[in-house]
Amino acid sequence: MCRTRAVLDIVGDKWALLVVRTLRDGPLRFTELKRAIDGISQRMLTVTLRDLERDGLLTRTVFNVMPPHVSYELTPMGLTLREAAAPLLEWSVAHLPAIDAARSDYDGRG
Amino acid sequence: MCRTRAVLDIVGDKWALLVVRTLRDGPLRFTELKRAIDGISQRMLTVTLRDLERDGLLTRTVFNVMPPHVSYELTPMGLTLREAAAPLLEWSVAHLPAIDAARSDYDGRG
Repeated sequence: MCRTRAVLDIVGDKWALLVVRTLRDGPLRFTELKRAIDGISQRMLTVTLRDLERDGLLTRTVFNVMPPHVSYELTPMGLTLREAAAPLLEWSVAHLPAIDAARSDYDGRG
Repeated sequence: MCRTRAVLDIVGDKWALLVVRTLRDGPLRFTELKRAIDGISQRMLTVTLRDLERDGLLTRTVFNVMPPHVSYELTPMGLTLREAAAPLLEWSVAHLPAIDAARSDYDGRG
């Protein structure tokens, strides 16, 4: 349990899951990621990308062209995380109405 | 994407996933949950249980016996979350060595 918790510090993180999901179709630049992930701050995206790179889940490639840019891409291990996280993400979308209803019910009780 | 994020505030949370996982085999009391989830504080467990109850994912039952106690149990919707989160939890356990290795490698670079 303790070691599972150590990994969940990474993958049981909303922003990490959203970054991995957003990179599912191929590499993206920082600005593209920022635009695609609603509500993420510049700093939170920077920290999340660095953690995912450190964990071996994505690679960061610097292109020395004009203008220079940086691209992020899932590693093979990152792709397996994307697969493993997919059911949870799908569940989230499917159950949002039921959760909204449960919250209204709960908040309406005395 | 925005609505997924709203649900991930709940389920993309390490402690919530660990509580749901710990309740997979049936109802448990607060003290049993606290003992089973390594490192969770009294306050964090209280908040996590209340959020999961509010979201309709578990029920809280008070037993007016001596001594009185409170029991927590997954709802049918909570059980479907447990199913959806299982691949991510299994992935976490399976990939912990690879992630540890990636971190050592990353931290060892200049």
